[in-house]
Amino acid sequence: MAAAQPPARRASIGARRNPDTEAAVLAAARSLLVERGYAGFSIDEVARRAGAGKPTIYRWWSTKADLFVAVYSAEKAAAVVAADLGDLRSDLIRYTIDLWRFWRGNPAGSAFRGLVAEAQGGAAALDALRHKFLGARLEAARAIFVRAALRGEIAESEVEDRLALWVGFNWFQSLTEQIDDESVIARRVDLLCR
Amino acid sequence: MAAAQPPARRASIGARRNPDTEAAVLAAARSLLVERGYAGFSIDEVARRAGAGKPTIYRWWSTKADLFVAVYSAEKAAAVVAADLGDLRSDLIRYTIDLWRFWRGNPAGSAFRGLVAEAQGGAAALDALRHKFLGARLEAARAIFVRAALRGEIAESEVEDRLALWVGFNWFQSLTEQIDDESVIARRVDLLCR
Repeated sequence: MAAAQPPARRASIGARRNPDTEAAVLAAARSLLVERGYAGFSIDEVARRAGAGKPTIYRWWSTKADLFVAVYSAEKAAAVVAADLGDLRSDLIRYTIDLWRFWRGNPAGSAFRGLVAEAQGGAAALDALRHKFLGARLEAARAIFVRAALRGEIAESEVEDRLALWVGFNWFQSLTEQIDDESVIARRVDLLCR
Repeated sequence: MAAAQPPARRASIGARRNPDTEAAVLAAARSLLVERGYAGFSIDEVARRAGAGKPTIYRWWSTKADLFVAVYSAEKAAAVVAADLGDLRSDLIRYTIDLWRFWRGNPAGSAFRGLVAEAQGGAAALDALRHKFLGARLEAARAIFVRAALRGEIAESEVEDRLALWVGFNWFQSLTEQIDDESVIARRVDLLCR
């Protein structure tokens, strides 16, 4: 129903973000993802639904990919928590299962594949994927490996390489639509923990 | 110049493939990939350039993705050979370096990213990716792991999981345009061999 009747236009308060406007934009972006997925996602339509000025949104997120990363980040932070279960293997299995469930069940999670697809032809999307998505978005997973290094389970010098292999494993499963069968997780995580 | 003046129409010899026509189609497909990449690739344009009937090509390859996999397979078989260097680590490092060079330097190799992108929104492309690309295309890499299992370097039951992790590693590097720095290969292959 929000789509049918846009709310009154929200005022910009300049370079500093207005938290109400930001929340309205993220909510509108989320509902647009639910309806249309990544392919049907656009800053212009989000602005219209949120009643926010396009210049404001573009100042905060300069591309569709950037805005998507913001929605994805907020949704993922709420849905997937990296628990400390005492050892690398347990932490990684738990986190991977939760990530796959997020990718399967959350509209922002499943739209992640659209961002990867757009990045194969578009420089802005590739930049968002590499520097925004893989930057802050990997902190929780990296922390699992760093904790394992502090426990002495793995060498500190191996954290980034093990993290990259774990990310590659998850991407491959998602991009080939093989994230339903959770039974492969324990076996592959076992190999990544050696 | 072949693009400007299509050759005379080639005759179909029915369900059995005419090798000359098949070679002409693959050559035309390769040159179209050189010019336009995966996004500009189409069966119709390949048919026009090869002077082949569209029904013939569609009988052999029912989608753009299928035809692409055929071109990719022929090019990769010629460019990347799985050498037997005596141990898993050496075999895998050599093969990964050669694969990355193929992806960087060969037009069919670099267009692989376009197939992955198309598969994120299209069922036919996903099917080609999962069942044709990942089927026969993985045989050479699988043979490296099978050989290692026969040598006793890894357990036979781990072949598929290790292969999947290796594929995920390569996809991740390619899809984020990080296949220039070959120095990460040895470190990550080391982990995959443990």
